[in-house]
Amino acid sequence: MSIPATGTPSLAPTAQRVGERLSELARIGGETGGGVTRLAYTETERDAHRRFCAWANAAGASCNTDPAGNSVAVFQEGTPYFLIGSHLDTVVHGGRYDGAAGVVGALETAEAIGPVHLGVRVVAFAAEEGARFGRPTLGSSLAAGLLDGDALAKLRDARGTTLLSAASSVGLDPAQTPSWLGDDVACYFELHIEQGRQLEAGSARIGLVDAIAGSVRLQLDLRGRADHSGATPMRARADALAAASECVLAVEDTARRNRSTVATVGRMHINPNNVTTIPGQVTLTVDVRDVDPDLQRRAAGLVLEAATKIAVRRGVRLAPEVLSLQPPVVLSAWPRAILYDECRARGVAFRVLPSGAGHDAAVVARRAPAAMLFIPCVDGVSHAPNEQASPGDIALASDLLCRAIRRTDELLLAARR
Amino acid sequence: MSIPATGTPSLAPTAQRVGERLSELARIGGETGGGVTRLAYTETERDAHRRFCAWANAAGASCNTDPAGNSVAVFQEGTPYFLIGSHLDTVVHGGRYDGAAGVVGALETAEAIGPVHLGVRVVAFAAEEGARFGRPTLGSSLAAGLLDGDALAKLRDARGTTLLSAASSVGLDPAQTPSWLGDDVACYFELHIEQGRQLEAGSARIGLVDAIAGSVRLQLDLRGRADHSGATPMRARADALAAASECVLAVEDTARRNRSTVATVGRMHINPNNVTTIPGQVTLTVDVRDVDPDLQRRAAGLVLEAATKIAVRRGVRLAPEVLSLQPPVVLSAWPRAILYDECRARGVAFRVLPSGAGHDAAVVARRAPAAMLFIPCVDGVSHAPNEQASPGDIALASDLLCRAIRRTDELLLAARR
Repeated sequence: MSIPATGTPSLAPTAQRVGERLSELARIGGETGGGVTRLAYTETERDAHRRFCAWANAAGASCNTDPAGNSVAVFQEGTPYFLIGSHLDTVVHGGRYDGAAGVVGALETAEAIGPVHLGVRVVAFAAEEGARFGRPTLGSSLAAGLLDGDALAKLRDARGTTLLSAASSVGLDPAQTPSWLGDDVACYFELHIEQGRQLEAGSARIGLVDAIAGSVRLQLDLRGRADHSGATPMRARADALAAASECVLAVEDTARRNRSTVATVGRMHINPNNVTTIPGQVTLTVDVRDVDPDLQRRAAGLVLEAATKIAVRRGVRLAPEVLSLQPPVVLSAWPRAILYDECRARGVAFRVLPSGAGHDAAVVARRAPAAMLFIPCVDGVSHAPNEQASPGDIALASDLLCRAIRRTDELLLAARR
Repeated sequence: MSIPATGTPSLAPTAQRVGERLSELARIGGETGGGVTRLAYTETERDAHRRFCAWANAAGASCNTDPAGNSVAVFQEGTPYFLIGSHLDTVVHGGRYDGAAGVVGALETAEAIGPVHLGVRVVAFAAEEGARFGRPTLGSSLAAGLLDGDALAKLRDARGTTLLSAASSVGLDPAQTPSWLGDDVACYFELHIEQGRQLEAGSARIGLVDAIAGSVRLQLDLRGRADHSGATPMRARADALAAASECVLAVEDTARRNRSTVATVGRMHINPNNVTTIPGQVTLTVDVRDVDPDLQRRAAGLVLEAATKIAVRRGVRLAPEVLSLQPPVVLSAWPRAILYDECRARGVAFRVLPSGAGHDAAVVARRAPAAMLFIPCVDGVSHAPNEQASPGDIALASDLLCRAIRRTDELLLAARR
């Protein structure tokens, strides 16, 4: 089966329903400023999952939630099955598209796909954002058996609440999650907003993700001496903020040396943070990402080396800590090739690009083939109330997924014969 | 009258009383961690002033508090008069010596001085620390008529409480302060901890301050774009923290070019301050100080120029603001010369040095001759619970002040004849 190139079609009825469902989800945890807060393992996140299951049930699908809080709706029985989905939690004051666009889009795909030979399921993963417990993709990692009990038991939010007690208070028990993400999954498809400006800049409506960057997260703690800003000559100072500033620029410089590396100091705490006191202590985080595992590791190493030199030269004590290490993931080529053909056949402006942000797809890819579609978001803004994307683009991506899954289904069937 | 050089005498009884009085003051606003918090225009500050007046009264002096909260104890009637003192307020979690040492030392001097021809008064200035309302030396500035009503009415603390309502709630009315600091003051003497390490490094017990640095305080607001740390290539970033880091290093570099200039970025606020978001906005303060007004102005100008270039190059918007401008003050040479002679005559290890920190003496110096004595504080630490100085050094300084004031009294009397 092949679709003739007819230019980008109108998907107005679907786009309208996508818009309505996104609005309905945005009211769950919705805020007066237009933002959405649905943190992991809260009743608000659960409400969104209940809404998801209600939609699936209305479309005739059964819906089950695993002990980690991942909800799976079975649209067509059968194994292996196609799994389509994303997540429903958000950061604090997040937007209405990050995660939700992929779940709502997946429902459209599953409802429109028609009979295929393999099974079709839609998943809403729990706790994808690292916003609450510091570690991202908790739900998918648990379903993939990639998070051990010890690591799980240690996770706490900023208020000191453990993940396990938070989950328990909403009726979940993540430690009991079976590893259900595996060989039964023929292919995982995820639709997500880009969270960057590459599609917008290239006037593309669809992005085909070839690799998902990993990340090395470091924490650098620099301790100097908190002296009086007026009474301490320049040569007698051990200024932790001046040392930290050199580290920030070294991080930037390290990333700039490789085309694919990005590195960011996003958070910095300064102590005592008074106008007239030389900062005695600064703690900062470094987020290093690359789609190439060697370059990623090397960049993190260069940052540590530079920070050590800066600290020694300035007489400041450096205590570095590796907060997390996620290797990059190269996604399977064949489902992307099918999506590529569908975009070409339908005259959709698309672009192949890596994802700098992490996604559930990177976790699933360690257990099953996975493909990822991006749609543009206005000015690349995400994790903010003014995050914006087009329901028309979501409908278009859902339609592409429909066609790609039907095509994959035929190919897999042919391969079995 | 001249004192024969007999080496550093024992002042044990005085040192003991100094220690006891400092302990008594430290209990007012004292904290479990050993720190002291007596913020400007609080009942805690007032309690310290009441304690001061009680000590003065016990020594036979009358004590009055002006509408700004400055307390003046008259030990010997007469005009012109010698004024000796310092302040009783502290920063948050401050120490027990900054300010208090000078007031307790002044009481010792006034009680021990014996009859002189001019009058003798001790002052405890109010609200010397800028910690609460952002502007330092409020009490002395009001008494010197150097703070106009409009500026006064605008001052607020971090909670939004105006200075005027805070003062009113402790029975004061700073707007009604008469300008009493003027021609009647023959000379002002202030004893204070150094808040630096120059005396300690030079094994000196006494510092004679020749000039008090001014300060230019700037606020730089840098606005870039808060993008996703993974999805935004290095070349597409407008990282406000990277721009701010360059500014911190430019501030340091500017100060290092002049021997006498110090410049510090002490406070920085980063927004949104998330591990995985490129900082979109950073606000930082710059404190530039010099004892030379031209160098001070020039250094502030160079900082602004550098920040502008950095912002333009990085595509970040810069909004600079001058928070305050205090010119440096050169103290009168003659009272310092008398103190110099007394130190030499008594074999006291001393050093002539400028003060990088601001003091009430810098304000009084604009209305009357002023002299300032420093004593060492351990490791230069101040504005912290572990601030430490020696009651023996305070007693020594009080004794030097006694002798210097008696000598000055003779000289002034001789000059009149």
